[in-house]
Parts: sequence; structure tokens; C-alpha cells
Amino acid sequence: MREDHQEAVARVDGARLWQRHAAMAQIGAIPGNGVDRAAFSAEDIRARRLLVSWAQARNFPVESDAIGNLFVRRPGTDPGALPVLSGSHMDSQPRGGRFDGIYGVLAALEALEAIDAAGLKTRRSIELVAWSNEEGGRFQPCTMGSAVYTGARSVDDFIDVRDNAGIALRDALAATLAALPEARPRPFNMPAAAYIEAHIEQGPLLEKQAKTIGIVTGIQGLRWFNVEVFGKTDHAGTTPLGLRKDALRASVAIIAALHEFTHDPQDITRFTVGRMLVTPNSPNSVASHVLFSVDVRHPDTATIVRLGEAVEPLARRAGAPCDVKVTPTLHDDPCIFDAAVVGTIERAANDLAVPAMRLPSGASHDAMYMARVCPTGMIFVPCEKGVSHNEAENASPEDLAAGARVLTAALLELANR
Amino acid sequence: MREDHQEAVARVDGARLWQRHAAMAQIGAIPGNGVDRAAFSAEDIRARRLLVSWAQARNFPVESDAIGNLFVRRPGTDPGALPVLSGSHMDSQPRGGRFDGIYGVLAALEALEAIDAAGLKTRRSIELVAWSNEEGGRFQPCTMGSAVYTGARSVDDFIDVRDNAGIALRDALAATLAALPEARPRPFNMPAAAYIEAHIEQGPLLEKQAKTIGIVTGIQGLRWFNVEVFGKTDHAGTTPLGLRKDALRASVAIIAALHEFTHDPQDITRFTVGRMLVTPNSPNSVASHVLFSVDVRHPDTATIVRLGEAVEPLARRAGAPCDVKVTPTLHDDPCIFDAAVVGTIERAANDLAVPAMRLPSGASHDAMYMARVCPTGMIFVPCEKGVSHNEAENASPEDLAAGARVLTAALLELANR
Repeated sequence: MREDHQEAVARVDGARLWQRHAAMAQIGAIPGNGVDRAAFSAEDIRARRLLVSWAQARNFPVESDAIGNLFVRRPGTDPGALPVLSGSHMDSQPRGGRFDGIYGVLAALEALEAIDAAGLKTRRSIELVAWSNEEGGRFQPCTMGSAVYTGARSVDDFIDVRDNAGIALRDALAATLAALPEARPRPFNMPAAAYIEAHIEQGPLLEKQAKTIGIVTGIQGLRWFNVEVFGKTDHAGTTPLGLRKDALRASVAIIAALHEFTHDPQDITRFTVGRMLVTPNSPNSVASHVLFSVDVRHPDTATIVRLGEAVEPLARRAGAPCDVKVTPTLHDDPCIFDAAVVGTIERAANDLAVPAMRLPSGASHDAMYMARVCPTGMIFVPCEKGVSHNEAENASPEDLAAGARVLTAALLELANR
Repeated sequence: MREDHQEAVARVDGARLWQRHAAMAQIGAIPGNGVDRAAFSAEDIRARRLLVSWAQARNFPVESDAIGNLFVRRPGTDPGALPVLSGSHMDSQPRGGRFDGIYGVLAALEALEAIDAAGLKTRRSIELVAWSNEEGGRFQPCTMGSAVYTGARSVDDFIDVRDNAGIALRDALAATLAALPEARPRPFNMPAAAYIEAHIEQGPLLEKQAKTIGIVTGIQGLRWFNVEVFGKTDHAGTTPLGLRKDALRASVAIIAALHEFTHDPQDITRFTVGRMLVTPNSPNSVASHVLFSVDVRHPDTATIVRLGEAVEPLARRAGAPCDVKVTPTLHDDPCIFDAAVVGTIERAANDLAVPAMRLPSGASHDAMYMARVCPTGMIFVPCEKGVSHNEAENASPEDLAAGARVLTAALLELANR
């Protein structure tokens, strides 16, 4: 590693990085050390303002695009050179943890500050990005900000989406943008030289193998569906079961059939129904309508295609006598990361003598969309027992700092290449 | 029938009765001709105020007890004689109809007005009662007002119950009571000579047999349970299914097992899961907690006991590896109505030459609790295709008027006995 790069890496401040996690964790804090920071909520806005205040303290320019993705730039010396991007997201699951997403944002900020504190000039600009609505817990689907930024989807696709309380994304997004007047408007999909996302693993592998750094090779494929079941509401005491169209009973039959169909003796297939809304949702009324989500994932393209294509016919068959409507809401093919970026991260870890291993990602990330438009990689750090999307999510200050050092070294190499 | 009683029955005004249904249906109107008038809501308060305004126009005194049950009295000549009560409820299901409950209140008011217009004196007072929260759609359990009035339960049992939005019954009840300052306070469980409740059938039998009046012989037994399933929230992409405690998957298994267990080839058993709340309810988080309702009914005591007692062990077994907690929330034994009151109603129908038949009630009613403290009966009128707890619920003005005439005649006989 170049000596000036080593100097910048040495400026990574693990204590500051940890304190910033603690400060962010107070925004939307919930019992059990967790965080509830829904996309475009008042808490999301407070997190964005805190991030901007840290950027402004260093005089880093701040930009925002029309879906609310937030950018913080440390300018390079060559205005014609494409920038290197790094970041993740600041929204959380309804009962999320203190590290998912926010770590990649704060690690990128730490890299920018360390490089700045060392007085380094880089040929390319380095830009932090905080993607909007990665979790999709409030407004579906997930990874919305990076999907729109990279042109895979458009703002119009999502502007009328509503949360469980009936609030339109249009209004929540407008409030978010209005709360950040200092962010200069930025167009979508500005060309980039590379993108690196740091993230907690959200799985048990690094901890089990006693590694500090995961060099991520790619992301498994994913299909999301909304399944709607249309029944008929009736009095629970008087209507014989043979005359009912019970949308909840039909949903139970569909979910049981899908579980059976997706059963995988090797336990590689991930199948989840995590969201269900029942109408009218009253103990003595037969349900007239149920909406539930389907999330199915597999690293192999042929398998995920087969599983995804079976959902609709299987749901229709199992849901009789109710009518069933299946709407695909997300479709991500398995993704393989850029070999050069993966190699850069691996070299940085080796140079810094941090125990590292290559592994695929079980979770989706914004890096999946960035991989379609520029060379992309990811850095994982361990999380306790692999627990994530849970208040108990935990990571050590040392591992977070090690990840930020590897990120800083990798960004410098890419920014000066 | 006595001549003066005939005169009063002739004063029953079918057009006025129908118009009052239309006026009440505007309070909480929802698309498709339905009504959403939750207990202790702003709409419930408006309905109560409208009822009180009609009572006051006739100078009938108005009273309310501490759970919000509303009473309208036409005084009798003998202050020492126990009163005769008649009524039903004004709250509705979230997607309810224009006749369920409100018919029994308006029919009783029609009887009071017809008797008053005919200038009749009765020995006993006749009192209209509008029971609070019969439906239990917002605050569980149902038939709350009559359960508390008759001493089967106490206000303290329910005061801390919360609706799906987290609002406590305590606060909603206080607002309801405060909105009716003219109602004089009334103690619970004042002795009564008899109670008659008029109601739409909510089933298909009268229509099928071309009868206008159902002389109700009793009510089938009922058990309600809340089943809570405790899992562990995890990331849907990274956690192998073998390591999960998925509360929604376990709930699906429990409901499927309960459906199988309660399956009845004769289709007499009523089994319904109508309410389900999922936490955190996000597509890519494994559910950590699910609460769902169980409603099971049967006219035979031994059968309902057997079915009810099986729910908890069966849910625990089918819900593994999640922990399961089953809380009984309602327990009504099958109920047989008083032979003298049933006979009085039958005689009234015969005297008025209205086609009538005896039948049991599939639905629960406040009459079940009143039957424990005084001689009780019910009058059913047909509803279209047996549809109830549904916006499409419908009944004819002629049938509603016929029911009010039978009610008037029966109340007069009981009030002068």
C-alpha cells in the first residue's frame, strides 16, 4: 500500500465511528436496543439532517436526487475523472437494529474524513451515498432509491405507493426533500468509476469462521410478490362453512402449499411470508380480503426462475374458492460482482493483515443495482450470531473500524487509479 | 288481542321506521350501502345523539349506565311494577350493513311511539335499550354492554382493552359518556319483567321458508380465543429456514390444524379466524409475533365444550417451534329462551296473521346475557340471502314493519300482564 494511503487509513477513528452509530441509534430508538426508522419518516429526516451536519462541518458538498438519495462529495483533482462511490442506507426495518445500512453510510463518511484529515488529494472525487428506502418496510418494494437512481425503475413507478397507514410515498418524499434545502439537486445515474458498499453480514458465516472481513462475491436472486385473496365477508355465527368464501382460510391454504412446494432439504432456498393485511379483520366476520407478501431467494438462476414462476398458478389452485391475484413487485437475478473491485478489496484486507474470506450475500443490497451500471463490490463485517432485522442486532466497535479501514484503503486505490 | 293494543299496533309507521334506518345508515356510511360505526367512535356518538333527539321529541326520559348502555323509557302507571325492556345495539362491524342491531333499537322506538301515539297507558314501564359494543369489531370481546349490565362481567375487565390503533376503551368510553350529558346515570342490572330483542336473522332460513317472523327459541354456544404465537424476527434473505422461529408460518400451521379438527360433515359447526395481526409485518422480516382470533360455535353443549377445550393443546402442538399462548376471551353456553316470552311472541304473530316459524339463532346477541337475569325472547325478520356483516346486507321495509308490529303487540301484552 502507498505510504500516503497508509497515513489516511491510520486516521480512521474507531471511537468516532462508534459514537456516530450510537447517535444515529437514538433516532427512532425502540426498546431492546433496536431502531425503527422508516423511509421518509420524521426519524429518517432527522438522520439525514445529522449526516448533513457532519458533512458540512468538513465543508463537503451535499446533493440529493428526486427520490431522496443523498450524496456527500470529497472532490478529486481531475474534474474529468469519474467519481468512486461508497455508501448504503439509513432507513431500518420496523423492528430493526443499530447497524444494518447505517454502517455503510458512516464507514464511507469515516473514509472521507480520514482521507481529508490526512490531507490527501485523490484524482477522482469520492462520494458518499445514502440510498432512500432500502428496506421496503414502509413503502414497498425495497432497494427503491438505487433502483430509481440506476434507471432500473422510475419515480413514477412508486410515487403512488401507500404505507399501511394510507400515506402516499409522494407526500412523504416531498416532506423529506423539503427538509434538506441545502442539498443541491442531482440528476439520476451520473457515471461512476466504481461503487463499494460496506455492510454487516446479516448472517452467521464470518463469526463462525472467525473472520473480520467478508469480501462479497455477489448476491443471491430474489423474487417478491403481493398475493391478494378475494373472499366474501359474512357473519361468523350464521354462515355455514360450505357457503363461505373465506379469504383468510384460503390464504392459509396458499401459504401452506407454497411452504411445501419451496421446501429444500439442503436449506438453501429462502421462503418468507412476512406481511399480511386482513380485511375487515374482525373476529366474527369472515375475511373478505387478504393481502400477503411472498419473498423467495436462491443463488442459482434456474432455481429462482422455477420457484418464482410457480407462485401464481400454485396460489390460484390452493386459494379456491376465492379469487387470487398475484402481482410481482421485485425481481432480481443473482448478481456477480466485478472481479477487479473484489480483488481491490481483498488486497486492502491483506495489506492491513485483517482476517478475511470471500462469500456470497444472502441479503439484497443497493449494490445489486449499482453492479448493473459500474464495477461494484461489497465489504461485510460480522454481526453477532448472524442476527439482523431484529433489535438484538449487534456488531463490535473493532470489527466496524476494521471494515472502515479496508474500505478507506480500497476507495483510495480506486480513486487514484 | 285487546282492542286498545290493536289500536297501538296500527300506529306503527313503516315509512317512519324505514326513514330512520336511512338516517342512521348515513352515520358511518361506507361504499356499497354499508355502515362502519365502531363502538364508542365519533359515529357511534352521532347515532346516540340522533336516538336521544327522537326520544326527547316525545319527552321520553333518557338514561345511561357506566358502560354506555342507553335507555329510553315510556313510564307505566304502576311505579312498583318491573319494566319490560326491548332493544339491541347501534354499533356495526367495520364493513357492516344498515340493519344489524340498529333494527332492534328502531323497532323498540317505533313500539314506544306507536303506543304513545295511541294514548295507551301500560301498567309496566316499557324501556328501549341500546347496548354498547355488541359487535366487538373494535374493542374485544363482543356483547360487552349487556355482559356488564347483567353482572356477568365488570367494567374493570374491559377498561384497559385497546383497539388496533392503540386507543384504550377507557378513553373512547369517557368521550361517549361526555357527549350525552342529558342521559341520567343508571345503575347496572335493574330488575326487569322481560326482555325482547328484534333483529335481522343474519341467516338464510326465513327467506327460504317464506316466513316474515322468526320466533327465536335460543342461541348456539360460542367460544372466543386469542391465540398468540411468539417467534423471532430475522432477515428473510440470510436466515436458513431450519434456524427460524417464524410466527406467521406457525400460525398458518395452527389454523390449518384447527380447520381440520373442527371439520363437520354436517356443516353445523362454525369455525372462523377473522382477525390477524402480524409483527413486524414487513415482507423481508421473519414474523416475531402473530395474534389471531378463534371463533367457534355449536348449538350442542357437549360439542362446544369438546371443541373449545381442544383449541389450546392443538395450537401448542401445531405451533412448534414457536411458543403459543391461548387466551379465552368469550365463553357462552348454548342458551334456551323463556317459554312464556316465546309463546307471547308466537301469539302476537298469529293474532296479526304474519307468517312465522320457530328457529334457533346462529349469531350471538345481547339477549343471551339478558336471558340469564329475566325472561327473554327474540324476534327475527328476514335479510336478503342471509347476508350480514357485509355492506350488501338488506331487508325489506315491509318485513321490518311487520316485525315492529309483532314487537309492539308482544311488549303490550307483557307490560299489562
